[in-house]
Amino acid sequence: MKKRRLGSCVTFFPQPATLVVSADAGGAVNLMMASWAGIVSKTPPTMAVSLHHGRKSYANIRELGWFSVNAVPAKYAIEADLCGLASGKDTDKFELTGLTVESGATPDVQLLSESPLNVECRYSSEVVLGDYRLVLGEIVEIHACDAAFVEQGSIDARQFDPLVYLGGLREYWSLGEKVADAYRAGLSLLPAKND
Amino acid sequence: MKKRRLGSCVTFFPQPATLVVSADAGGAVNLMMASWAGIVSKTPPTMAVSLHHGRKSYANIRELGWFSVNAVPAKYAIEADLCGLASGKDTDKFELTGLTVESGATPDVQLLSESPLNVECRYSSEVVLGDYRLVLGEIVEIHACDAAFVEQGSIDARQFDPLVYLGGLREYWSLGEKVADAYRAGLSLLPAKND
Repeated sequence: MKKRRLGSCVTFFPQPATLVVSADAGGAVNLMMASWAGIVSKTPPTMAVSLHHGRKSYANIRELGWFSVNAVPAKYAIEADLCGLASGKDTDKFELTGLTVESGATPDVQLLSESPLNVECRYSSEVVLGDYRLVLGEIVEIHACDAAFVEQGSIDARQFDPLVYLGGLREYWSLGEKVADAYRAGLSLLPAKND
Repeated sequence: MKKRRLGSCVTFFPQPATLVVSADAGGAVNLMMASWAGIVSKTPPTMAVSLHHGRKSYANIRELGWFSVNAVPAKYAIEADLCGLASGKDTDKFELTGLTVESGATPDVQLLSESPLNVECRYSSEVVLGDYRLVLGEIVEIHACDAAFVEQGSIDARQFDPLVYLGGLREYWSLGEKVADAYRAGLSLLPAKND
C-alpha cells in the first residue's frame, strides 16, 4: 500500500465522540466535547481523558474531584460539536443545545441524560503533557441504555448508535455493520490442538 | 431514557481496533491487538496505549523504546482478533495471520504494512495502573494511505475503512455514514454575532 508521511501530528482514528460533564463548587454544570478519552485499566477500572489545562472542565474536575464521560448518540452530533467549539466560561451550552443532565449514583456526579452510556468517574491522578492534562479517573459506575439489553446475555449495539470521531479528518461518523465477534473470530486461525 | 447500572467495569465504546508492533533486541517482531489506545496531547504529539505488564509487547517496548500503533482495516478483523488471543511468547502471529511489516521512518520501528494509518512512537514514560501500564509515546511520524488523498485538501475516510471495537460488547464494527463535520456543524447553534 502506497503511503505518505504526515509528520509528527495527531491524526489518528477511530476515536470515541464523548461529552464530559463536570461541575464547579457553585453547582454550575459544564459540558465539554472530548475525543481523547478511553479505558486504560481494569485493575481498578480506570478511564482517561485528556483536556487542555485552560478548559473550564479541567478546573471543575480538579475542584470537585468528579466527572462523567458520556458516549454521544449519532443524532446529537451537532449538539456535541457545539460543546467542542464553545467555552463553558462564557456560554451556557445547555441552553444552546437543549441537552440535559441527571444525577449519577454519586451525588456529586451529573450524567448526560441523552447519552446511552455514562461512565461515572472519581478523579485519581493526572499526567502533565505540555498544555494538556491526562486526567485519570476511577470508574465507580457505568450506566447503559436499558433498551439495548434485548434478551439474556445479548446486547443490541444499534441501540447505543455511538458517534465515532475521525481525528485529523475532523469528521463524525456513525457505525455501519458488525464485522466479527472479538475474542472469538480469531480462533479460526489457530492451529488445531493435538491432545 | 431508562438505564441500568453495570457497576464498576470497563464497558465503553467506540474504541479504535489497533495493532501494536514492537520488537525485541534480537529483532523478533510482535503484533498485539490494543483497543485502549489514543492520542493524549499535541504538545508534543503523544500517543497512549495501555498494556498488561505481562505482555511480550510491553517487554519489547521497554527494551527498545520504540513501537507503532496501527489502525486495522475492517477486512483484517479476524487477523487482528487472533493477535489479541495469542501470545507472542509462544506463537508466530505473522505466520498465523499472513500480516506483514515494513520499516518506518526510524530504523528501529516496524509498521504494519496492511494498515492505512501507522503511528510511529518513541517511548517517553508510563503510568502504573494495577496490572496495566499506560505507555506514553511521542509521535515521531504518521503514515497514511496515499489513496485517501483524493484531491487538494480533501481526504476520503472510506479508504481507511477503520475497524471500530465495542468494548464490553466484544464486537468489531465498520464505519457507516458521515454524520457531520467537526468544528463546523455546531456553529449553527451559536447565536448570531451583533458586530
